Amino acid sequence: MVNTLAVHRGGRALLLAAGLTLGLCFAASAQPAPTSAGPADPKLIEDLVAASRILADHGLLDGWGHVSVRHNKDPNRYLMARGLSAELVTAKDIIEFDLDSRPVDTHGLPMSALFTERYIHGEIYKLRPDVIAVVHTHAPSLIPFGDTKVPLRPMYHRSAFIAFGVPTFEIRERAGMTDMLIRNATLGRNLAEALGDHPAALMRGHGAAITAPSLQRVVSRTIFLSLNATLQADAMRMNAPITYLDLEEARLIEAREGHGLARTWEGWKRKAMAKP
Amino acid sequence: MVNTLAVHRGGRALLLAAGLTLGLCFAASAQPAPTSAGPADPKLIEDLVAASRILADHGLLDGWGHVSVRHNKDPNRYLMARGLSAELVTAKDIIEFDLDSRPVDTHGLPMSALFTERYIHGEIYKLRPDVIAVVHTHAPSLIPFGDTKVPLRPMYHRSAFIAFGVPTFEIRERAGMTDMLIRNATLGRNLAEALGDHPAALMRGHGAAITAPSLQRVVSRTIFLSLNATLQADAMRMNAPITYLDLEEARLIEAREGHGLARTWEGWKRKAMAKP
Amino acid sequence: MVNTLAVHRGGRALLLAAGLTLGLCFAASAQPAPTSAGPADPKLIEDLVAASRILADHGLLDGWGHVSVRHNKDPNRYLMARGLSAELVTAKDIIEFDLDSRPVDTHGLPMSALFTERYIHGEIYKLRPDVIAVVHTHAPSLIPFGDTKVPLRPMYHRSAFIAFGVPTFEIRERAGMTDMLIRNATLGRNLAEALGDHPAALMRGHGAAITAPSLQRVVSRTIFLSLNATLQADAMRMNAPITYLDLEEARLIEAREGHGLARTWEGWKRKAMAKP
Amino acid sequence: MVNTLAVHRGGRALLLAAGLTLGLCFAASAQPAPTSAGPADPKLIEDLVAASRILADHGLLDGWGHVSVRHNKDPNRYLMARGLSAELVTAKDIIEFDLDSRPVDTHGLPMSALFTERYIHGEIYKLRPDVIAVVHTHAPSLIPFGDTKVPLRPMYHRSAFIAFGVPTFEIRERAGMTDMLIRNATLGRNLAEALGDHPAALMRGHGAAITAPSLQRVVSRTIFLSLNATLQADAMRMNAPITYLDLEEARLIEAREGHGLARTWEGWKRKAMAKP
Repeated sequence: MVNTLAVHRGGRALLLAAGLTLGLCFAASAQPAPTSAGPADPKLIEDLVAASRILADHGLLDGWGHVSVRHNKDPNRYLMARGLSAELVTAKDIIEFDLDSRPVDTHGLPMSALFTERYIHGEIYKLRPDVIAVVHTHAPSLIPFGDTKVPLRPMYHRSAFIAFGVPTFEIRERAGMTDMLIRNATLGRNLAEALGDHPAALMRGHGAAITAPSLQRVVSRTIFLSLNATLQADAMRMNAPITYLDLEEARLIEAREGHGLARTWEGWKRKAMAKP
Repeated sequence: MVNTLAVHRGGRALLLAAGLTLGLCFAASAQPAPTSAGPADPKLIEDLVAASRILADHGLLDGWGHVSVRHNKDPNRYLMARGLSAELVTAKDIIEFDLDSRPVDTHGLPMSALFTERYIHGEIYKLRPDVIAVVHTHAPSLIPFGDTKVPLRPMYHRSAFIAFGVPTFEIRERAGMTDMLIRNATLGRNLAEALGDHPAALMRGHGAAITAPSLQRVVSRTIFLSLNATLQADAMRMNAPITYLDLEEARLIEAREGHGLARTWEGWKRKAMAKP
Repeated sequence: MVNTLAVHRGGRALLLAAGLTLGLCFAASAQPAPTSAGPADPKLIEDLVAASRILADHGLLDGWGHVSVRHNKDPNRYLMARGLSAELVTAKDIIEFDLDSRPVDTHGLPMSALFTERYIHGEIYKLRPDVIAVVHTHAPSLIPFGDTKVPLRPMYHRSAFIAFGVPTFEIRERAGMTDMLIRNATLGRNLAEALGDHPAALMRGHGAAITAPSLQRVVSRTIFLSLNATLQADAMRMNAPITYLDLEEARLIEAREGHGLARTWEGWKRKAMAKP
Repeated sequence: MVNTLAVHRGGRALLLAAGLTLGLCFAASAQPAPTSAGPADPKLIEDLVAASRILADHGLLDGWGHVSVRHNKDPNRYLMARGLSAELVTAKDIIEFDLDSRPVDTHGLPMSALFTERYIHGEIYKLRPDVIAVVHTHAPSLIPFGDTKVPLRPMYHRSAFIAFGVPTFEIRERAGMTDMLIRNATLGRNLAEALGDHPAALMRGHGAAITAPSLQRVVSRTIFLSLNATLQADAMRMNAPITYLDLEEARLIEAREGHGLARTWEGWKRKAMAKP
């Protein structure tokens, strides 16, 4: 049934009720593994590995964070590394998942060798057909904003997407006392709903989920969301009015975003891949 | 007599009075060296070396800090490097100590070549049978908390253990004016008593002692205790209420802590061991 | 007509009206490429490459920032890399531009492979014959100052030039809502006018443009403008009066500036060029 | 006459009036170069090179800072590198100076190839026979303290020497408007007088001069003076009373300081000398 879910990029299907049911029943079932969409574009795999390494090199992914991308041949599949420290990820560690975050093939690994919180990715891809790539990070500078609920505001053009809103997901409101992890499809859906139409959501006491229409942009957004938090905190301590980017400035920036990013990506990638 | 001390993991013997006497009389005695528990598990030694290097790589151990682990064959013995900069430690530098912090064999080194403050480790192991690994650090971000007595509170799931309390040891209350070092068993016991049942204690004007039920977790706790201090200080400057982890959230996190840490450890270790 | 523009170093021609016209008509025209001033001094090219790498090594240039230098044979030409991450720039990536920021020869590259914001450089060179080198940076520490309009003040001798004033360019005042980029000669001229006689100008929500009478000094100014911002923000939080450099102290420092810089440059260069 | 100056370690000659006269007349004279005290201990030279590299590796010396040590054969001579970026210093760059900061032999270099501010070192050695090593640094974290005159206070045992007082030298009080540099013996003496009996002095708008009874300790003091400034600024923002080290605690620490430093030095040195 998942394979027949019509996920149209650009549109937005109302899949909430259906997805909740699916998530719950698959979590408990022993159904056969989902079918593969076929081999992904090698360039996409290469970029996914680079994304993981670049974010590790920036101190934004450690052994617990992860980055994924939608499969180029099927919007109902996504690609993500097996549970592995971000700086160690290679092409052979990439696993294909369906949108219920069930692996197509674990390469012989037990399920416990996968990232527990892969539901963050699958559930966001379900609700947000426009999203092509997702990052889950514990970037330190974001934690004080998540814990205080002080809204992030866009300090400069590199973090313009913040103008579209970065809500904070309070897991207590949906699930009470937990170990904070997005351990199942229900919590994943709760997070995806809190994210809504926004580019990113902070997670109180935990980190953030960040989305974008491409791998390069989700990496860039993660880097600059984190940097913006540091700069905004600095500015807030200067006891002077702060001029944030206007929503219209942000729209004009985002409409052209990506030009220039390709060359920056080459610099980031070269530095990250040169690490031992 | 020390060898017959019944240290049961999981239980908690009331050894305060006896230990104080022992510590004092051994400190002044010329008794024979304690017997060895035999060769430790090579994997434990490898992990202890890695722990030292990882903490050095994170800027949390310098020439004055150290990490130890209880011997896998005898809870009345612990393993720690000879006095050496943390980034230089190798397997051959590891020395076995009894819980009075007397070396089994100094490998021909004079006693002055050992860490003066090894009593931090021995005295904590005596009072806390549940503790398997101990770190003593001068991590910079902890110093302002120790000097101001502002309580550390858990900012996010990675530092959840802080919810169990991190007291501050004021050496003046026990010993008046000193050179701040834990130079003998009595001061070590004072510190261990201030630590009590908590996972860590700050030491005013000095640093911290951190404990855990494994080497990997004591390394993780040291990294995130230090990071939490930075993030809490940042949040405290934002003039907004801060939602810390609830004690129940912390309990749920700690009950599962360790899953995922093994893979993070691999990333930390690879990076640290690649340093020249 | 551009080639005949008399740009005298040391003097200051009033080129505003003429330049505005030129910039606008060239932007829309399909005129032949400007003629070359001939091969630049290889040492100048080497220094330009080093400048790019040093600023990248200091975290002050990424894929979006750039540094340029006036051609040693013709003040109406300047040299800058093609659009490329600063840490990847080599001598063969350097392109010659006229002061309308038209390339003499793109080495077969499409115009989209050039830095969009090259007009920052060309328009400053037009209005400021004393300027020999220009940097455009998104240095993080400058963003809070640009967004709050808190004036930068000189904290110490290394950043003495700040005493001559660092205005903030508010693009909204000249062009309303934009994508913040200096995309054409008109915006470049607006920025150059806001810069006026000053050594540098912040750009609200964007970064800064920094000028100097040499490549080595523009690199040094970029490093210490950024560091001064961090130090000034720190000092402002100490709730005590701050003694900034006096204008006369700054004049005396700047009159001798450069002595000592050559040796520092060698250290910076060696470190930056050794990066993989 | 300088060669016959009786500088006794442990005592303190009142050389103010004589020194002032000497400094002024030598500055303008063409007297013969001072005689050499003979080859210095190669281990001392090796340590001096290491000191320079370690401080560079810690970001505390750049092209403008320097470290010196008194000659092991003659208290009236000191050793310091020719003007060179600290990370590039090797044994062959070390030059011998008399206490008027005149080089014994410039190795064929012009006087302009020496550090302009060498008078900081010579004049401190003159007034402080107890001082064996001197650092002049522009360490960033010290600048806000120098500019605000907020007194540095000792945060922890590693920076205990701060309890002995760190005055701030205000060059305007002695010389009015200057280019801030200690360009001659008179300014050097002014600074040395402001330093007085203290271990270090901040220099408003410039940096600091730090002294110690050995090279290893002056390096350690420079590292921890800088770190203490960061930590104290952090603590001051926590709106809670700060317990600094007591003067008696500091005395007890300093009386034993050095034990343990030798092993830390090995770690610092290995890391610094491994840099390309």
